[in-house]
Amino acid sequence: MKGIPPATVQRLPIYLRCLNDYRAQTISSERLAQLARVNSAKVRKDLSFLGSYGTRGVGYDVDHLVYQISRELGLTKDWPVCIVGMGNLGSALARYGGFGERGFEVLGLFDSDPRKFGKKIGGREIESLADFDTAAREREFAIGVITTPAGAAQEVADRMIAAGLTSILNFAPMVLSVPDGVDVRRVDLSTELQICSFYLARQTAS
Amino acid sequence: MKGIPPATVQRLPIYLRCLNDYRAQTISSERLAQLARVNSAKVRKDLSFLGSYGTRGVGYDVDHLVYQISRELGLTKDWPVCIVGMGNLGSALARYGGFGERGFEVLGLFDSDPRKFGKKIGGREIESLADFDTAAREREFAIGVITTPAGAAQEVADRMIAAGLTSILNFAPMVLSVPDGVDVRRVDLSTELQICSFYLARQTAS
Repeated sequence: MKGIPPATVQRLPIYLRCLNDYRAQTISSERLAQLARVNSAKVRKDLSFLGSYGTRGVGYDVDHLVYQISRELGLTKDWPVCIVGMGNLGSALARYGGFGERGFEVLGLFDSDPRKFGKKIGGREIESLADFDTAAREREFAIGVITTPAGAAQEVADRMIAAGLTSILNFAPMVLSVPDGVDVRRVDLSTELQICSFYLARQTAS
Repeated sequence: MKGIPPATVQRLPIYLRCLNDYRAQTISSERLAQLARVNSAKVRKDLSFLGSYGTRGVGYDVDHLVYQISRELGLTKDWPVCIVGMGNLGSALARYGGFGERGFEVLGLFDSDPRKFGKKIGGREIESLADFDTAAREREFAIGVITTPAGAAQEVADRMIAAGLTSILNFAPMVLSVPDGVDVRRVDLSTELQICSFYLARQTAS
């Protein structure tokens, strides 16, 4: 159990994305900082948690850094993903090409509306939520994505947890209550807009 | 121009959401910390940037705190939003009820596919991207949301910036290059999964 601060964890995927264009090269902390839009002292500090310090005047070996970050993020292992709630957002996620190639293969799509059962999205059929438990155990879902309306989200979360999932990505606009040991990450699209608003209000004022 | 750290800005919308269930009450920093899943010292520090210190043994007046956070986030003003790219994700956002009620009214939906023009989503017709510039000036879009495929995102961003927008929320999986003075926030759904992965790998290891 390493003590990497949560704020650093949040930035690691950003570094990883930026580094992808620099494979087989070296990169300075200043350049990486510029790409990731943080300051370079923070980059050096973040990378030091991985045991990476770079070489003075040369920078960091990008391939090694990508390996270290990937390992730290647990990306050297595949994590099967399921999505529950196949409205527009669930469908968008199911079609999103980027998941599979990064080790997050979508192995299950579920809904409670019988009219959707059997419909194919991104090559996979939508299944009944009633079959979730069996599917979860057979396909060993590691991450459950909730894209249901707010009113259904807690029930879906409970079902995921009962089936043994310990990691939930919640897009429904509500706070889920879960037992200790279950990690819930909430993606709230209004939150992002509110942060836009903060900087807009500053621009307007200045 | 106040010096509120970016990390605090990121947490303000979370506090706001948690406080909504406690209107007309008081709340302790410990309780708010628990709801927002941060530590209580951080809550007190964050709120001190707003000039809020609470009352010993009583806590914070929730209504006042909501007012202060809303004001700080610029939510006391309306920010018209446009969405470009009306695939599944754009459609999901256009239908997402939570924006309007928080002061982010969606006033424009655009696509470059003529087959989509005139189709209604959430009560508003999809317009041609060719008409973006005129619409942006007439309706004073403040925030541009990009939900196009990666290949189209930079061109859309350029068009938004040319039309005077200074705040962009980018869902396309690519890094946009924009001039100084333009604020781009990227929502990368893989990033969230990678953070899930980090904590999953830690669970498995422990």
